[in-house]
Amino acid sequence: MLTVTVNASKKYDILIGGGLLSRSGEIVRYLYRCKTAVVVTDDNVARFHLSKVTQSFESAGYQVLTYVIPHGEASKSREQYFALLDFLAENRVTRTDLLVALGGGVVGDLTGFAAATYLRGIKFIQMPTTVLAAVDSSVGGKTGIDIPAGKNLVGAFYQPILVICDTLTLSTLPDSVYDDGCAEIIKYGCIADAELFEWLKKPIRPQIDRVIERCVSIKRDIVNQDELDMGIRATLNFGHTIGHAIEKASNFTITHGQAVATGMVMIANAMFRLGKASEATYEAIRDMVEAYRLPVKTSFTEEELYDTMTTDKKRSGDRLRFIIVKEIGSCEYLDVRVEDGGDGITLRKVLKEALK
Amino acid sequence: MLTVTVNASKKYDILIGGGLLSRSGEIVRYLYRCKTAVVVTDDNVARFHLSKVTQSFESAGYQVLTYVIPHGEASKSREQYFALLDFLAENRVTRTDLLVALGGGVVGDLTGFAAATYLRGIKFIQMPTTVLAAVDSSVGGKTGIDIPAGKNLVGAFYQPILVICDTLTLSTLPDSVYDDGCAEIIKYGCIADAELFEWLKKPIRPQIDRVIERCVSIKRDIVNQDELDMGIRATLNFGHTIGHAIEKASNFTITHGQAVATGMVMIANAMFRLGKASEATYEAIRDMVEAYRLPVKTSFTEEELYDTMTTDKKRSGDRLRFIIVKEIGSCEYLDVRVEDGGDGITLRKVLKEALK
Repeated sequence: MLTVTVNASKKYDILIGGGLLSRSGEIVRYLYRCKTAVVVTDDNVARFHLSKVTQSFESAGYQVLTYVIPHGEASKSREQYFALLDFLAENRVTRTDLLVALGGGVVGDLTGFAAATYLRGIKFIQMPTTVLAAVDSSVGGKTGIDIPAGKNLVGAFYQPILVICDTLTLSTLPDSVYDDGCAEIIKYGCIADAELFEWLKKPIRPQIDRVIERCVSIKRDIVNQDELDMGIRATLNFGHTIGHAIEKASNFTITHGQAVATGMVMIANAMFRLGKASEATYEAIRDMVEAYRLPVKTSFTEEELYDTMTTDKKRSGDRLRFIIVKEIGSCEYLDVRVEDGGDGITLRKVLKEALK
Repeated sequence: MLTVTVNASKKYDILIGGGLLSRSGEIVRYLYRCKTAVVVTDDNVARFHLSKVTQSFESAGYQVLTYVIPHGEASKSREQYFALLDFLAENRVTRTDLLVALGGGVVGDLTGFAAATYLRGIKFIQMPTTVLAAVDSSVGGKTGIDIPAGKNLVGAFYQPILVICDTLTLSTLPDSVYDDGCAEIIKYGCIADAELFEWLKKPIRPQIDRVIERCVSIKRDIVNQDELDMGIRATLNFGHTIGHAIEKASNFTITHGQAVATGMVMIANAMFRLGKASEATYEAIRDMVEAYRLPVKTSFTEEELYDTMTTDKKRSGDRLRFIIVKEIGSCEYLDVRVEDGGDGITLRKVLKEALK
């Protein structure tokens, strides 16, 4: 088992290893005892992994309640959020009880937001069961739901007391879902770790434990410096500004991993063409994305992406921040103007080059 | 103008004085500049005070959006919460913009919770316009909404960047609303300040500025020690455990102030009868509550209160914590068992004595 310790507003551990779910109750009991643990999961994950967790928690002396949501992004809704809160209240879950998020990003984000706001905050644990959740959404304390105006527009910064990543669960993932999560892994290599980037040139499944450890360590280091996302945490958005626009323009039929993968390639292309980064860097990112069977191009037009991006919540005033990878393993900011006119690089210019 | 500085997870000032709303834009501009200020208020408050605030903010260079909710507790709902979030998103309010809560506790709690969760948190200012909001809900960072299972069951701890209490607004309040807010003022005297309790024996309106300053200073001192309500902050709940049950059992036709007033008298009565506090203390509290035309008795039965209280969110496991005022100006805890049987004082015993 590998352990990464996070020092955010609260300190907590991320445990990574095969078979941890069957021991999860015992592990948690050592950290936090209470009467009731509420395990929230989705129907897909429940089929494979729920009984392992409930049995382990019951053996460890917890009363266990389970709450199963339909799988998919549509469950990150206000309706599911309030249905979960109603369930907690109806079952008289108290402030000293515990929520457990067993699943991917949707389960983690929804459960985390419910934990952040039920009785103004109760403790919760993340148990990611997808690559994407393991390396990204389960770490760093961002929780939230979608509203009609956009994804993740409502939420809270709220840290779990523990993350348990059982890497055996990843073996039950279809290849397409596995690859999808690899987009964020490639991102970590690009922005912060050339050695990790090299590792990814070999088959990933046999080395997934050390890859996850490396990714969450990078995210931990960044989040430690900037929990509330006012500065350096923005580097984690490499590929995401365009990526989010692609996701949104597709009405979320394109997955997060696919969209971020395309976004990374597009922004690398634009920065090469604008003289801000080398062609070799662009090619390395493009080749890596292709190697993981992720898309390097989008069919959306400049106009479609522009319209979608001008509602992006990361937009601060009349500028938009892009992350540029100058060479693999390091990055910097580029702020561009949203409106045309004046000196310097504008959003339209970036998009024009990115689509070439 | 009187100033009280709070050192919670964030540091902020509470400004108290007559006529502050007309200068609010100018005051805020000195503290925080941004493009847009969204003023949230209710229809009653809007009629008296909204234009003062919007004009002042516009003169100070802010773009001002206003959002008016219907007055009354029914607006502290999930529907109003999401309608406000939709409004913010549709108007492309960004992370660096500002929310302003102009009104009583409902406006403050709803707006504060929206500020805590819109884009995972944007800055906000409280401008209380009722006595209750001035001395209680606008200070301390508790925000939230009601759900069908109970009041304030969903929310966040989230501090404003400033509280502006214009005491001229209180002169527009009907006597009944004014008196209602005095229940919490009496509470502060009971739990922490015998001198304040003495002040209250004289007419309150002419001395309201210093009374508010004293109350928020007490709350500040308590919140500084226990922002997340894990310990000493519970002392602020004197009268509230029974009070909340009365409010809830009445389906909120009984106001918060009336219910808390009755709750204080009832628990003081029970503690005198159980030999935990003196008769003189009970009588002093009862007389003061009567002097402010607030109710000293309830028509609910022991059974009705018991059932309602066992869902109280402050309940931790199988015990319920009461605050006891031994003599005016100081208090301590008494944990009682919810279930009957065994040694010691039970909830039913407390209620039985309280109703005598």
